[in-house]
Amino acid sequence: MDNNLTLNISGLLSNVRQTKPLVHHLTNYVTVNDCANVTLAIGASPIMADDIEEAAEITAISSALVLNIGTLNKRTIESMLAAGEKANEMSIPVVLDPVGAGASNFRNQTVRMMLERLQFSVIRGNMSEIRYIAGLQATTKGVDASEADLENSLQSGIDIASGLAAQYNCTVAITGETDIVSDGKTVICIENGHPMLGSITGTGCMCTSLIASFCGSTGDYRMAAVAGLLCTGIAGEHAYENAGQKGNGSYRTALIDEISKISAQTIHKGAKVYEA
Amino acid sequence: MDNNLTLNISGLLSNVRQTKPLVHHLTNYVTVNDCANVTLAIGASPIMADDIEEAAEITAISSALVLNIGTLNKRTIESMLAAGEKANEMSIPVVLDPVGAGASNFRNQTVRMMLERLQFSVIRGNMSEIRYIAGLQATTKGVDASEADLENSLQSGIDIASGLAAQYNCTVAITGETDIVSDGKTVICIENGHPMLGSITGTGCMCTSLIASFCGSTGDYRMAAVAGLLCTGIAGEHAYENAGQKGNGSYRTALIDEISKISAQTIHKGAKVYEA
Amino acid sequence: MDNNLTLNISGLLSNVRQTKPLVHHLTNYVTVNDCANVTLAIGASPIMADDIEEAAEITAISSALVLNIGTLNKRTIESMLAAGEKANEMSIPVVLDPVGAGASNFRNQTVRMMLERLQFSVIRGNMSEIRYIAGLQATTKGVDASEADLENSLQSGIDIASGLAAQYNCTVAITGETDIVSDGKTVICIENGHPMLGSITGTGCMCTSLIASFCGSTGDYRMAAVAGLLCTGIAGEHAYENAGQKGNGSYRTALIDEISKISAQTIHKGAKVYEA
Repeated sequence: MDNNLTLNISGLLSNVRQTKPLVHHLTNYVTVNDCANVTLAIGASPIMADDIEEAAEITAISSALVLNIGTLNKRTIESMLAAGEKANEMSIPVVLDPVGAGASNFRNQTVRMMLERLQFSVIRGNMSEIRYIAGLQATTKGVDASEADLENSLQSGIDIASGLAAQYNCTVAITGETDIVSDGKTVICIENGHPMLGSITGTGCMCTSLIASFCGSTGDYRMAAVAGLLCTGIAGEHAYENAGQKGNGSYRTALIDEISKISAQTIHKGAKVYEA
Repeated sequence: MDNNLTLNISGLLSNVRQTKPLVHHLTNYVTVNDCANVTLAIGASPIMADDIEEAAEITAISSALVLNIGTLNKRTIESMLAAGEKANEMSIPVVLDPVGAGASNFRNQTVRMMLERLQFSVIRGNMSEIRYIAGLQATTKGVDASEADLENSLQSGIDIASGLAAQYNCTVAITGETDIVSDGKTVICIENGHPMLGSITGTGCMCTSLIASFCGSTGDYRMAAVAGLLCTGIAGEHAYENAGQKGNGSYRTALIDEISKISAQTIHKGAKVYEA
Repeated sequence: MDNNLTLNISGLLSNVRQTKPLVHHLTNYVTVNDCANVTLAIGASPIMADDIEEAAEITAISSALVLNIGTLNKRTIESMLAAGEKANEMSIPVVLDPVGAGASNFRNQTVRMMLERLQFSVIRGNMSEIRYIAGLQATTKGVDASEADLENSLQSGIDIASGLAAQYNCTVAITGETDIVSDGKTVICIENGHPMLGSITGTGCMCTSLIASFCGSTGDYRMAAVAGLLCTGIAGEHAYENAGQKGNGSYRTALIDEISKISAQTIHKGAKVYEA
């Protein structure tokens, strides 16, 4: 446990709850309700608006933007670009969740195009998605990381995150057994979480929404990413303790419960976070 | 507590459960599952169909129509108009939920256009949304009412609801700490509810679906609006008692539980409703 | 109880959990989150991708495909056809859920067109939907089976399922008080389930996702259909025992809990399944 890091994250949590940043989401229709509920649970305020007629205008009144390509379609790609460009213009942080990158040419081309045209503050994905973006061999199986990609060493993950962060001048967060966050210069690892997080849909998307909520109330996007991962991980552990035996439905409910109850104290007690 | 009002509302609840009205929703993809579930929980039957090829036809077999602009897009605006016009033609009640009115030009123009072309039975919104529609200064922050707008007096809210109801010849329902319902001549206030309703997404949308469910089995749309607000408020209180301490996820589950268990008795015991 | 049948189904369950088949869904936005969660709960892996640019490509890496027309629109019909054709070409099983067939010309024409152009492995619907597809008088009320259609005898349902299965050379599953599965030659009935399954949205869609999950790890689509219906029915009973009194919200959570906890033992103890 690193006391400075946990103090820093507790401060970010307090900021979110005081400033209630509006977080604009262009996201998939599978997990959108969960994204809205975790954004509220951490203390921020969600808004979803994906028509090209209003996407940029809604971004302009928001404090952070999520671009999540989980159920990508041609209509909303245009809106994502418009929203992203407005955010860049106004220095509003943009968080990319490249759901399923590597699984289809359409997703691959869209992610490439977004990386060319937009400046992201944070990119969060699983190992397969991030490997794909980094131009490495990735054996994605749909929207989950493949076992082959997960077998690589922690050091290899750190190298990928650092390299990609340097290349795109942003923070890269890889979620997995050990989460890795890098801004290209420094690396922070988080060992919180529980395997049961993989047994319900949307925990990656929810984590991205938490990162964006934190980005909406700080200029330190690296620490915002750490905070989002840490809150997901700690809540995932507590949810398992309280509801894991009951089954997947109860675990999902408990996860949102625990995100809404996270505090400086639970962070201080539970965080397994360190500079690598 | 007003005994005549609560008797009246209990009668409406019994009607819904006996007639199981089909409630056609053109609504957003964020809270649509919750809308479907509360419609079932109160005893009605939901159907969602938004393609222009079938929107009017589905409305024609329904007993009420919800138009909710939470994730408005150009494709579904056309469908909303077709469904609304069919409903008007057949005297099927239409309930408008102007989510985020005031937040973008696109929403504003769409709401204006709908108000010009369609006759609504009930318009339900928060104070910022209703102030915007009434042509007053509104400082909406996304889809939630702004604190500035909430600081106005109850009397000012009553005046706005009454004026707007008279202007559009419909019932206007403003949800807030005190809910206000007016048909332009009379005013009913409801003091049920709990602040935790604001901590989960979709409670406004769910309330609108309940209002439409009641509209689907009575010709008294003013009382249908009161019934929808009252059921949301009472269920919100009970959900807090049973699950509030557990967190936001459990509160959401409990809210739907309590809507499914609402009865003449819980209404009689819990209602804080009076003619203003 | 038929010991051979339950042994067979337990084997299928074990297969799903070992092979974790990827199940591609083109489905409605109302219950899509529930579909994703039950797919995970049974041990498979969901992916939702509906743009024409990637639909067929995602199907090609999947082990089963769900086409669910709950919120049909012109954009996704094209994608459904492309995905279905790719699946047929590659002998990937396709499961059709004709939600609301009979309720609008648009749904009817789309279902007809799909039946002409695609070869389904399983068609699962309620009695009104299946009666409509079979060309019989159906009095559908939205997306639920009408009471008139439910009053027909079990033998009449068996005849319809058998005839339709023979006509389209596939397995037909009708869900109701007694579920009926036929491949045109044999008939299996399942008497599990609970009326409360009808009080929450999406239990039909979830059942279809379970069937597709089983199809993704066996070539015996008739037994995959039986397994999906049986798991839904047994989970629906257990969920009622554990949470029915709490209300609809808790019942929904418990249903997903019970699907995630289903085992050879619960199947063996609880199955009410027999060859008719």
